[in-house]
Amino acid sequence: MPPKPTPSTAVLLISCPDQTGLVANTTGFIHANNGNIVHLDQHVDHQGGVFLMKLTWDLDGFWIPPERVAEKFQPIAERFRMTWSLHFSDVVPRMAIFVSKQGHCLHDILAHVSSGEWNATIPIIVSNHPTLAPVAERFGIPFACIPVDADAKAEAEAKQIALMDEHQVDLIVLARYMQIVSDDFVRRYPNRIINIHHSFLPAFAGAKPYHAAHERGVKLIGATSHYVTAELDAGPIIEQDVVRISHKDGVRDLIRKGQDLEKVVLSRAVWHHIQHDILVYGNKTAVFG
Amino acid sequence: MPPKPTPSTAVLLISCPDQTGLVANTTGFIHANNGNIVHLDQHVDHQGGVFLMKLTWDLDGFWIPPERVAEKFQPIAERFRMTWSLHFSDVVPRMAIFVSKQGHCLHDILAHVSSGEWNATIPIIVSNHPTLAPVAERFGIPFACIPVDADAKAEAEAKQIALMDEHQVDLIVLARYMQIVSDDFVRRYPNRIINIHHSFLPAFAGAKPYHAAHERGVKLIGATSHYVTAELDAGPIIEQDVVRISHKDGVRDLIRKGQDLEKVVLSRAVWHHIQHDILVYGNKTAVFG
Amino acid sequence: MPPKPTPSTAVLLISCPDQTGLVANTTGFIHANNGNIVHLDQHVDHQGGVFLMKLTWDLDGFWIPPERVAEKFQPIAERFRMTWSLHFSDVVPRMAIFVSKQGHCLHDILAHVSSGEWNATIPIIVSNHPTLAPVAERFGIPFACIPVDADAKAEAEAKQIALMDEHQVDLIVLARYMQIVSDDFVRRYPNRIINIHHSFLPAFAGAKPYHAAHERGVKLIGATSHYVTAELDAGPIIEQDVVRISHKDGVRDLIRKGQDLEKVVLSRAVWHHIQHDILVYGNKTAVFG
Amino acid sequence: MPPKPTPSTAVLLISCPDQTGLVANTTGFIHANNGNIVHLDQHVDHQGGVFLMKLTWDLDGFWIPPERVAEKFQPIAERFRMTWSLHFSDVVPRMAIFVSKQGHCLHDILAHVSSGEWNATIPIIVSNHPTLAPVAERFGIPFACIPVDADAKAEAEAKQIALMDEHQVDLIVLARYMQIVSDDFVRRYPNRIINIHHSFLPAFAGAKPYHAAHERGVKLIGATSHYVTAELDAGPIIEQDVVRISHKDGVRDLIRKGQDLEKVVLSRAVWHHIQHDILVYGNKTAVFG
Repeated sequence: MPPKPTPSTAVLLISCPDQTGLVANTTGFIHANNGNIVHLDQHVDHQGGVFLMKLTWDLDGFWIPPERVAEKFQPIAERFRMTWSLHFSDVVPRMAIFVSKQGHCLHDILAHVSSGEWNATIPIIVSNHPTLAPVAERFGIPFACIPVDADAKAEAEAKQIALMDEHQVDLIVLARYMQIVSDDFVRRYPNRIINIHHSFLPAFAGAKPYHAAHERGVKLIGATSHYVTAELDAGPIIEQDVVRISHKDGVRDLIRKGQDLEKVVLSRAVWHHIQHDILVYGNKTAVFG
Repeated sequence: MPPKPTPSTAVLLISCPDQTGLVANTTGFIHANNGNIVHLDQHVDHQGGVFLMKLTWDLDGFWIPPERVAEKFQPIAERFRMTWSLHFSDVVPRMAIFVSKQGHCLHDILAHVSSGEWNATIPIIVSNHPTLAPVAERFGIPFACIPVDADAKAEAEAKQIALMDEHQVDLIVLARYMQIVSDDFVRRYPNRIINIHHSFLPAFAGAKPYHAAHERGVKLIGATSHYVTAELDAGPIIEQDVVRISHKDGVRDLIRKGQDLEKVVLSRAVWHHIQHDILVYGNKTAVFG
Repeated sequence: MPPKPTPSTAVLLISCPDQTGLVANTTGFIHANNGNIVHLDQHVDHQGGVFLMKLTWDLDGFWIPPERVAEKFQPIAERFRMTWSLHFSDVVPRMAIFVSKQGHCLHDILAHVSSGEWNATIPIIVSNHPTLAPVAERFGIPFACIPVDADAKAEAEAKQIALMDEHQVDLIVLARYMQIVSDDFVRRYPNRIINIHHSFLPAFAGAKPYHAAHERGVKLIGATSHYVTAELDAGPIIEQDVVRISHKDGVRDLIRKGQDLEKVVLSRAVWHHIQHDILVYGNKTAVFG
Repeated sequence: MPPKPTPSTAVLLISCPDQTGLVANTTGFIHANNGNIVHLDQHVDHQGGVFLMKLTWDLDGFWIPPERVAEKFQPIAERFRMTWSLHFSDVVPRMAIFVSKQGHCLHDILAHVSSGEWNATIPIIVSNHPTLAPVAERFGIPFACIPVDADAKAEAEAKQIALMDEHQVDLIVLARYMQIVSDDFVRRYPNRIINIHHSFLPAFAGAKPYHAAHERGVKLIGATSHYVTAELDAGPIIEQDVVRISHKDGVRDLIRKGQDLEKVVLSRAVWHHIQHDILVYGNKTAVFG
């Protein structure tokens, strides 16, 4: 179902040390400038003393033009020592999809984007194998095959980074990309690389989680989408889900059932990212909405 | 685990027509009186044009004493035509539990209350059968056996109402109480009677839902807790959940699996009610927290 | 992951009145002819007095050639008055996909088939609208646009039936095909038309289930795949699942979350069908495996 | 609901190296002695080459008296090198419950047993603390408080073992018993000690899993019931389940939500054990039924 036109909105994502007056001052700012708050979700993590908020308001009738909102909000942000970001609903995010040989997550993302369901574009698909080039071609999306050799990884990543720059990529989605990306690569895209790992992390981090799950005899298998950080499979978790298995399921059944889970969990995470629902604090996420 | 002492807090539950300035004015009131907002969750139902909010703040340091908060908030409430209620965390709700012959939901509630996990007391258990009297006795709770004859229902309800008055009951929990309560009874306790129905409503409303589910060959069975209204099984839904079944499950298996679901779903609903998480609007609930 | 070559197997699906000797005689037949049973799942529905069994064995080394198995098994089947079917793993099922304007279920099925994950082919996609023709074209599958006018439905179905014949279709998948098929059409393909309905049936049968779910204020939405029978949304249920929603979800959120569910539930049902896991008895299914 | 009288049945649980003729010979034995098979579930784990089967038949009309079934079946068992056990539905299992200070799992088990829902008795509750003595007293069950000092653990276990002997205990349920039992203790009760661990193992094994889960920022918390082996939290898993959490849930919320999960997961595992549904092979379980 193609989305109906909605009025343009702005989103503020805020985290800061908890203190009195945060909500009153922030909402007062919107209200004083004739903004109508569409959605506000706020939470205080008492254990960490952290205040977290997502605030969405209509730009229709708002007295401050979009390009000057940041500047006008700055004094409030400084007063409360906020870490904050500002987003507008009419900016279309640009996502690069990284894949290896398996296409189930890629197919799911392409279905969401090509149907117009997601407000996003895919300027480039990157892979270390040519396997999925025909899929990219079907959907009319450029496909860059960049083999990754163990002894020339930096070179491969330099090519990838050049592509990201060229295509002005906002978000990198590792859609079962079976390579470990370097610390340097990760640092360039903080909280802007989303990975899907095929286990309920922290269980079965690393290679071959379905084999490990079968070996251990678990009764549930899972999938976890998370932002990529320097430490493997240890970044802030965005979304997880599980599916029930039994002794009747061999490793191939786990792979089959797991793939259906992976694609759904990854797509939910990407959806929340492009909706500006996600706030990263410490090594955790708050997912609003 | 007994709850650790927490500072006393106040909760405002507000619904009203959506309009600008609602959050700013409400949070401004708390802030101006030196209150620290612990939790704010707000939502606008755009289809209905309804604004919904739960606001929790510390009473520690708040300049207005508890007994005068309502009076001081009244002008804001009137200005925005709010339907609102005010609750304090140090008031312990008094729940009557109504049962028939099955004890699984009663046992679960008693376990929560007797362990101190829930901030609530049970002054009275009411039943139309003597079956569960020994359970009440074990937990030292008065048990009133009030048989309900089809031709003397009004009389039985008069006795029940007298008991509710005597014990100053805030909430009535129908924990598999197999009688239909009268409209008159329901009207006395608006949004204060919680029922558990053993199906995922609106499927299989009415009698013998597990038999109906088995007959239809569904692959999931469910349970639904809702506030009781004049129309049978049609009140505002608070919580639902399901469990997977297969062709191997006969009606008795459905009953067994369903009972585990019923008790969990009912207890979650009661928990949210006594936490003041639930706002009823139209024939729906917003469950915050 | 492309499936590894597996030895060819045969499957017997059997239902009959429960009686002694069923398992012993059936497995004795396989054993006496040097067959190795790979999988046996059997169940007696005591309420209905019905015996249900799926039996899978290796054809490698089996003394009876595939084309004569049915004939040799016939005497046992007759003796026990069995309703039975025989399937071979090396026969590739031919599925027609019927769609209207929404492509999410179609995309999911195409991803499963084009990746080689499913042992099935799609000779034809049929629609009453041209909307998804480009999707069919991308995947190189013939697309037949057959508009369905209320006053010329029989004519449209005649064209559809001709196409089914021409393409020797084994299974028809209604992947959000928004038309009601006629009794006559249904009768031609008994237990060979699979539909996806976007609610947890029997709740919200008929049109606009997400709107009805939102109106009722349920806390879970569901999807149901079932074989199509003459009565709308009342055929044997194959698979169901649900996803949690809250008061924050408007109808459009229900549609978005529901679509992810629909595609997964439909694909699971189709998978079980082509694996010969499903036995229909009465108006129910046993789903083995 | 008290179970209706059912005809007495026998259960065979069999595991052995996979080979032809297993089902035919076993079911032939039942059939030849006029037994009616009520339920048969069989599976071959191809990766391990292991055959697993649960077989249930009516003793009503069976020509071999219960006390001679084992002896008569022995030759078949030997021929196929079976590991097997034989159970009768009219033998009531005797369970000891071990607890520490938290009563939620104990309450749930007591509700199941005291209502007659489970075919089991509890001759003794053992604890290292007196906290739950009043609960045992309410239900009229002997309570043994055996403190466990780090330097006198063997002594404490000797007392526990004496109690198990005295009460002829078939099954030990560790219902949030916060002590690690010794290898020697474990060896006495192979596959007869069921524990509940409050995480989705293998994630968060060991102490304080809810704190670890909160620290890691997972989006699901779980519970795992398993047979106890010498290695901590590493025994064969019987049942697992999860519940969704969000950034709004502090450690205390995780504990609260987790407790509801723990009791349900543990009770499902105990139910399957006393139904003779569980076959242990390698470090895994097959859970039939």
